[in-house]
Order: sequence, then structure tokens, then C-alpha cells
Amino acid sequence: MQPMAHQDLILSWLYTLVEAAANVAFALSGLLAGIRKRLDVVGLCVVMGLAAFGGGTLRDVLLDRRPFFWVAHPGWLWILIGVGVTAIFLLRASHFQFTERAIQWPDALGLGLFTASGTQLALAQDLPAIVAVLMGVVSATFGGILRDVVCNDIPTALRDRSPYAVCAFAGGWMYVLALYLAWSPGTAFLLAAATATGMRVWALWSRYELPAGDAAISGD
Amino acid sequence: MQPMAHQDLILSWLYTLVEAAANVAFALSGLLAGIRKRLDVVGLCVVMGLAAFGGGTLRDVLLDRRPFFWVAHPGWLWILIGVGVTAIFLLRASHFQFTERAIQWPDALGLGLFTASGTQLALAQDLPAIVAVLMGVVSATFGGILRDVVCNDIPTALRDRSPYAVCAFAGGWMYVLALYLAWSPGTAFLLAAATATGMRVWALWSRYELPAGDAAISGD
Amino acid sequence: MQPMAHQDLILSWLYTLVEAAANVAFALSGLLAGIRKRLDVVGLCVVMGLAAFGGGTLRDVLLDRRPFFWVAHPGWLWILIGVGVTAIFLLRASHFQFTERAIQWPDALGLGLFTASGTQLALAQDLPAIVAVLMGVVSATFGGILRDVVCNDIPTALRDRSPYAVCAFAGGWMYVLALYLAWSPGTAFLLAAATATGMRVWALWSRYELPAGDAAISGD
Repeated sequence: MQPMAHQDLILSWLYTLVEAAANVAFALSGLLAGIRKRLDVVGLCVVMGLAAFGGGTLRDVLLDRRPFFWVAHPGWLWILIGVGVTAIFLLRASHFQFTERAIQWPDALGLGLFTASGTQLALAQDLPAIVAVLMGVVSATFGGILRDVVCNDIPTALRDRSPYAVCAFAGGWMYVLALYLAWSPGTAFLLAAATATGMRVWALWSRYELPAGDAAISGD
Repeated sequence: MQPMAHQDLILSWLYTLVEAAANVAFALSGLLAGIRKRLDVVGLCVVMGLAAFGGGTLRDVLLDRRPFFWVAHPGWLWILIGVGVTAIFLLRASHFQFTERAIQWPDALGLGLFTASGTQLALAQDLPAIVAVLMGVVSATFGGILRDVVCNDIPTALRDRSPYAVCAFAGGWMYVLALYLAWSPGTAFLLAAATATGMRVWALWSRYELPAGDAAISGD
Repeated sequence: MQPMAHQDLILSWLYTLVEAAANVAFALSGLLAGIRKRLDVVGLCVVMGLAAFGGGTLRDVLLDRRPFFWVAHPGWLWILIGVGVTAIFLLRASHFQFTERAIQWPDALGLGLFTASGTQLALAQDLPAIVAVLMGVVSATFGGILRDVVCNDIPTALRDRSPYAVCAFAGGWMYVLALYLAWSPGTAFLLAAATATGMRVWALWSRYELPAGDAAISGD
């Protein structure tokens, strides 16, 4: 490998920073969901792990990629366990009050990053554009779906009418478009992540709701 | 490859036709389930996709086969998204009335086809007969199970006492029997699909119920 | 291969015996869960199969190992189907009373065995220790999680404050520790299994409960 240029170094440093923020944000969403369901310390760690790593792991199983992120970087598993144990003891000590809405902003960052990296990895395997975009959506949303299924809820990503998966979908297409226009992979990555995160932040701010049907179903 | 004979051409055309019907039928079952749970347009597309492709994708992960059906034929993903978006706007425009029972007949067709193709693919990998039959059952039923888990219901295939998985089970064994009798793969395929679909149609028509236990369980 | 020594023969025989007990124990836990949810005979077999084979199969998908246990030993599938059908007819004939607590002791045996074998298989692939231990935990607990998700419950392993996954976690570390001390794989296996099973039995006997938080969550 040749030494990285200045811009690549900044990109790489940004990538690591945002990736960390994304994992932490998704793990925290699992933590909040687990606390609300009054899970014990083990359940908390499992739900945090599913939320943080579930999307990327399913993407890697579907793409037949190894090693998984948490196998290549096992340090994250220790951090996750540490946070879960600390959270339980903080909760017992202080009856700490969480505001659930606070988690939505780093979660939006994570959504953008996982969208861009999932789309990128799938395109690197020469998959069709629509499949690559779906891999981005899967990376960005499946952790939250697993978190909610294990907590016995209808997944927020499916039930909540605030746009979520559709932001990842739009971000993925931005990546495809940028490559089609022969822009650099770094630019495509930033554009995709910014689109998905930006749409999500706008959706939260404007309280926009996706259309849904309310048809009566007869029979049975 | 040599040119296909007349009978093979008809079989191939039939296969494509019935496969399309099977995917559409399973996608429609997901659409109905999603509408009943009042999911938004994205949730609808996800539940449709899980119902249509979930069984085949799990089968391919278990058999370590690539590419998945929806990676090899990405056009189906567009159709699915189109149907989801159209359905939402139709529902908003017209308060359309669905009869849930209407979906059961194409669903029975899909059950037969996925049973036969799942069993065939597993036998092609020299797996034991019981494993191949189970792969047929997984292909035919797992999409519906995923659909119901995501919608936070006990899966119909497990709770409903009308025979469903057992039809796929019987159909798979017909495939194994036909190969044992040295019949052609085409005949085995048709026999397996016809058995599973026929049993399912008969079960719906006769309202037969599988035996179930009603034991009291003591203790915690 | 050279002939096995006396000790290896005993170990191999013990392994087979305990592995059978583990599969049977987990299958029975699925049987009880299915009966409580009044599933039909097919649903019973599916839930039994998920409980018995789900953990090992997920572990093998994550480790990219083939063939699965139930593909290599398809006889177990027949036994499982036989037990499911027999159970339904016994239940209908006799209104048999189950004591759910009776299942906890063989389940603890299964927990230990799957912990040790999962950790062993992951270490054989040169994975980091924390990942190998997690693979042991996944092997030991995921079958029960799948069983509960399909039955539409919050998984016992997550909700119940009696230690379960944490016993597997401790057992896995015993395996790693024993290898670090250059003990034989057989000793490490027995130590890991005994630790996990022993902790679980102690937890059941002492009714110890893991700490959990009861914080109020504001917002939303």
C-alpha cells in the first residue's frame, strides 16, 4: 500500500469517528428499549448488541463477507458490555431520567453512515444498483428491527410513519448516482450519508408523516 | 447447452408463470398483513419483500447458495416497490375492500411451487431426503413466518390448525418418492407441487383441522 | 486416524450422551412452550426444532461452517417429529400434567454443553477470545430466543432475571482460561460445561436475580 494523501487521511479519520458515533447511537437506542422493557443486565447487553451490530451482520451474511465488524474489532464488544453494566448500576443508584428524543440525533448520523457503507460494500461485489441500495437499507435498519422484535414490539421502522428506511433508500441512490457521474468514492460516501442523515433530521424536525392506508379488511 | 425439447420449453414457461404467481401471491399476503397493521408505505414494502423472498433467502443461506433470487432478478424488487406505493394510494383514494380469503388460492399455488423447488435444490446438493424435504418446507413457509413475526403475531403457519406446513412436507416426500422410482425431474417437480397445492386447497375447502393438545401446564 | 485411547473413548461416549440430553432438553422446552400456546402438531415440531437446533445453526452460519448438525445427523429430525406427534396424541388422550420446572435441569445440562462446544469451534477458527465466548453464548441461548420470538413472547433469556446467558458467558471464559493454562482440550471442555451448568443449577436453586434498572423514561 502507498501512503494515504492528506484528504484520504482526513476521510479515514472522519469515517472512524462517525462509525464510532453510529455504533454508539444504535447501541444506546437498544439500551433505552431494554430499560423500558425492564430487561436485566444480560438482556440489556444483548439488545444493545443486536441494535448496534445486527444490521451490519445481516448485510455480511447476505453478501457472504467475513469477518464481521465485531469479529474484526472485538474491543467494541467489551465497550458494549461495560456500558450495559454501568447503565444498570447508574439506574439503580440515581433513578436517572432519559429523554428518548435525545437519541434521535446520533441515530440519524448512524443511519447515514450505515447506508453509505452498506451500499458501497454491495457495489464492490458488482451487485445491481437496486440490490446495493437495499443492502444499505438493511445495514441501516435491521439492527433496530431486531431490537424491536426481541422486545416484542412491532418494529418502529415499519410502524412509525416518520420516514426512516426511506431516508436510507434515498441516500443509497445518491451513492449510485454519484458513481454514475464518475465522482470519487469519498464524495459518493459523504453525499449518501449526508442525504440519508439530512432527510432523517428534516423528517424529525418537520414531523412529516408517510402516507398509509386505513382500509377495512373484510372476511376471515 | 443443447436446445430444449418441446416438453422442456413448456415446463420452463410453466415454471416461470407459476413462480411469478407464487411471488406475487406471497407478496400480496404481506401486503394484506401490513395494511391490517396500518404500516406506512415503507413498512408495507418490507413486509411484502419478507413474505415473498424470505423463505427462499433463508433456504439459500442454509444451503450456502448465491446469488439470491432477488439479486439475480432485481426487477422483482421494482415491481414490489411499485405495488406497495400503488396500494397505499389506492387505499387512500377508494377505501377498497379486501376479502382476505381471496388470497388463499394463489398462496396455495406458491406453497406447492416453493416446496418443489426447495426440495429439488437441496437434493441437488446430495443432502439426506429428510433434510431436503425440510428445505422445501422452509422455502414454502418461512416467508409467512417472518411476515407474522415482524407484524408481532404468532405465525399463522404455527398457530392456525388448518394444514399448511404439513402440505409442503407431504409434497416434498412426493418429490423424493418420484426420484426413487426413477421418474424424470420434471414429473417429480409437478407431482410435488400438485400434492402440496392440492392438499392445501382440500384443507381450505374441507376446513379440516390438525390435532392439537389442550393440556393444562402446572407450575411456573 | 489412530485408535482412540481409553480416556478419549470415555470422553467421546460422554459427549454423545450429553449432546443427546442437550438436544432433547431444548426440544422439550420448545414442546412445553408450544403446548402452552396451543400450537398444532406442525407448530409443535417447528418450535421444538428451533429450540433444539436454532442456536447451533446460527453459530454455524456466523462461523460459515457446513454441514449443520441436523444435516449431518438427520436421524434427530425423525426423533423430533416422532416426539411432536406422540405428544399431541398423549395430550389428547390423557390431559397429562406437565411440571415446567422439571425441564430446567436437563436444560442446564444443555446450556453447559452448547457453551463449551460453541466456544471450542470458534477458537478452532482462531477468533478472538471474546468472540469465541460469544459464539458459545449464542449456541447456548439462541434456540430459546427463537422459540420465544416465534411464540410471540419476550425471550425468557432476556426478560427473566434468573442468570442464564451469563452462565454461558462465564463457562466460555473458563474454556479460554484452561487453554491459556495449557490444559488439554478435553479438560477445558469439561470445565467450561461444568461451570455453565453449575452456575445455572445454583441460580435455580438459590433463586438469585440479576440486577436490573427501573428508571422512568420521559419524552415521546
